[in-house]
Amino acid sequence: MCPTSFTMGTKGNIENILPLSGSGHFVPLVVVLVGLPARGKTVLAHKLERYLNWNGHQTRVFSVSSYRKKHESQLFKSRDIMCPIDSKTAEIRNAYIHEAINDTQRWLNVGGDIAILDGTHPTFEIRQLLHDFFVKQLSYKILFIECILDDAKLIEENIKETAQLSEDYRHLEFSTAVNEINEKIDMFSSVYKPICPRSESSYSYIKFNNAGENINVRRLDGPYQTKVLGFVSCFRPIRKTLYFSRHGESEYNLLGRIGGDTSLSARGKHYASLLANYFNSAKVDYLRVWTSEKKRTKQTAEGIQAPIENLIPLNELDAGICEGMSYEEMQDKFPQEFAWRDQDKLRYRYPWGESYLDIMSRLEPVLLELEREDSVLVISHQAVLRCIIGYFLNSDPEKLPYLNVPLHTVIKLTTKGYDFEVEYIKFNVDCVNTYRKQPEVCTKSVHENI
Amino acid sequence: MCPTSFTMGTKGNIENILPLSGSGHFVPLVVVLVGLPARGKTVLAHKLERYLNWNGHQTRVFSVSSYRKKHESQLFKSRDIMCPIDSKTAEIRNAYIHEAINDTQRWLNVGGDIAILDGTHPTFEIRQLLHDFFVKQLSYKILFIECILDDAKLIEENIKETAQLSEDYRHLEFSTAVNEINEKIDMFSSVYKPICPRSESSYSYIKFNNAGENINVRRLDGPYQTKVLGFVSCFRPIRKTLYFSRHGESEYNLLGRIGGDTSLSARGKHYASLLANYFNSAKVDYLRVWTSEKKRTKQTAEGIQAPIENLIPLNELDAGICEGMSYEEMQDKFPQEFAWRDQDKLRYRYPWGESYLDIMSRLEPVLLELEREDSVLVISHQAVLRCIIGYFLNSDPEKLPYLNVPLHTVIKLTTKGYDFEVEYIKFNVDCVNTYRKQPEVCTKSVHENI
Repeated sequence: MCPTSFTMGTKGNIENILPLSGSGHFVPLVVVLVGLPARGKTVLAHKLERYLNWNGHQTRVFSVSSYRKKHESQLFKSRDIMCPIDSKTAEIRNAYIHEAINDTQRWLNVGGDIAILDGTHPTFEIRQLLHDFFVKQLSYKILFIECILDDAKLIEENIKETAQLSEDYRHLEFSTAVNEINEKIDMFSSVYKPICPRSESSYSYIKFNNAGENINVRRLDGPYQTKVLGFVSCFRPIRKTLYFSRHGESEYNLLGRIGGDTSLSARGKHYASLLANYFNSAKVDYLRVWTSEKKRTKQTAEGIQAPIENLIPLNELDAGICEGMSYEEMQDKFPQEFAWRDQDKLRYRYPWGESYLDIMSRLEPVLLELEREDSVLVISHQAVLRCIIGYFLNSDPEKLPYLNVPLHTVIKLTTKGYDFEVEYIKFNVDCVNTYRKQPEVCTKSVHENI
Repeated sequence: MCPTSFTMGTKGNIENILPLSGSGHFVPLVVVLVGLPARGKTVLAHKLERYLNWNGHQTRVFSVSSYRKKHESQLFKSRDIMCPIDSKTAEIRNAYIHEAINDTQRWLNVGGDIAILDGTHPTFEIRQLLHDFFVKQLSYKILFIECILDDAKLIEENIKETAQLSEDYRHLEFSTAVNEINEKIDMFSSVYKPICPRSESSYSYIKFNNAGENINVRRLDGPYQTKVLGFVSCFRPIRKTLYFSRHGESEYNLLGRIGGDTSLSARGKHYASLLANYFNSAKVDYLRVWTSEKKRTKQTAEGIQAPIENLIPLNELDAGICEGMSYEEMQDKFPQEFAWRDQDKLRYRYPWGESYLDIMSRLEPVLLELEREDSVLVISHQAVLRCIIGYFLNSDPEKLPYLNVPLHTVIKLTTKGYDFEVEYIKFNVDCVNTYRKQPEVCTKSVHENI
């Protein structure tokens, strides 16, 4: 994301926000990554950004290296600027760090909740500079997250991934990129001082050791820091594959009815048997299957040789008083509700039921578990899978209710850095189409029909 | 709570639950407290129980000492049974530990989500026994929380509090109780082995050091453990006082209208000035004031000499399309909604608005902050304060919507162990009465009127 454009979402352009009052929000937080290159900082930064935004906190990553690159032309080689012991480059380093923190401040001032500074921040001095600026001068909060990794194999994997995926290296020959990263690691190793529990004991920090195996936390403070810890304690920076499928076609799908708890149709059962064949012959290591507690997802999972768990948070959106109706019946019986739903499907709640926003919220523990897990097949329902897949693909929440998640299809997500590659595996079993586009003509305001 | 009665709430008497499937819930968790006496384990256990129940997870504390007491008559002195090096008592100790874990298992089997075992669990052997039973045998999850405290002053305070408040000691002369607790500490100190990061590295554990100043976390696993960490990272076991007040009487209060954002009435302004006098002359150390972002709470806080923050989560329950109406207008315009609200005020959501359950959920970060803070005055609204005060007083959620939180009154909560003492400070300023009892005649089912 471009760190110099500050178009905010719903909050507009608020000027002169006092740090401790006026905004209605909690005190802004600056998360500062700390650690040597190839310790997984960038992946953590972007995954954390996604999670916090999903939870409604305006969050943005500021990459220190993108500021550095603007100054590259002043130097012979790009990596010279990073040499921490070369006094000639100190001035330039100072300049781009100040650019980064000034942009961070400006963004927080116009309504951002949480800024994440992605960089090495290897010395006491740089951390103190950041603390003095954000905490003492601006009365914001700061949380350092130090990524510590001793496992040589994991470091090597991270180096390869950085060489292939990072904007800084992917234009280079692979072996050249790997060499450059290794040089950079050597250079930073000579100055890097881990956060010191004694001399830096007044800071709030999290030490994230060996890909999350253990974590040390000091002086956590404020609701945003609690939320960050929640994510960090679940996050495992592993390469992984997750599988998603809706239940096979159900009896209610055939009748065009909402919700309920019916069995699979004949075609739905056929899909379930093909799905079982697919996974049983693929022999995915340590595969586990999570379904909702509805019959149609349990029946879909039935033949798969793997441990199966049934989880309430994976149940379909609760349509409240409209459960079991067709959309035509709903339109007939509750025309106001039907119109409201078309106007804002993301926020619309069925009376005594749920909205998409509600299921986004109840899915949070499931998403955190999926951040920790590998090789899980989730068999659930249209609205729920729209939310889960939308989370991993960083979709705009407004578009979630119209994301296409067809029946009789496995959606496979495989990590690629902090993103996922998507593969749709369509099974050759006919089914009804449950996708319904947003009507083009619908009243603009949710209050217009009252 | 009596550990042998197993009446469950909404889940009924489910038999033969498989640990990994069938219940629709996540795998049950056993939280095991570890640490010497007077390290704050019991307070943490009960506060954690309250927080988890509030979040909808069926949680119960099982106190090992209550099992021990049943065997006291077999010994000369009650504390003999605790002597960890006396082989004669080993058999009895073994018996009551097994009673405790069997009851824990039975309770989790009939639908409990999280059991908290409150005791010292001081040795490798006892922790291994618990791990073998709950994890290896039952496939449940286990999380150890070790309370470590080096601060002599805090330990002394804990000893005094235990002597005064604990069921085990409060029947004794204060000095006798203090001596008994000190003897108990000496006895356990001789066998206590802190959780070892090497030999016990396969366990999930949290080390809670020096009243939460720093925390070490290892191998956290599963959504309940994430939730527990969220609480533990915020919890500060300090004696404290919290103050709550609704805004002064507003213009809408006078008109009997719902919600809105009106200013204070003349009487409301008078209350605000008396409230400011009260706090300005009380000179509460480090007082801070949190208001909602509505005019009427900001105006109520205006004259108080303390830092003031305005927080969106403290806003009143959003009445959606009924904002600004009187209850008579609502009944007239939306009779179905009006009837539904009377039938189940806790769960009833205004269209495009909120329910009490919704505000309980959005209040979570505020409650966690209040667990961390001391000397905060929260100026908010009727429904929101019902939820916050209800949380600290461990009220039944079903009763929250009818809790009496009158206008022009400061409610002062002061810690007493893991409970709070309540004081109502009524100011002598007339105001309307906004309290409305649940009507005695209302249809029983929310679907009956459709």
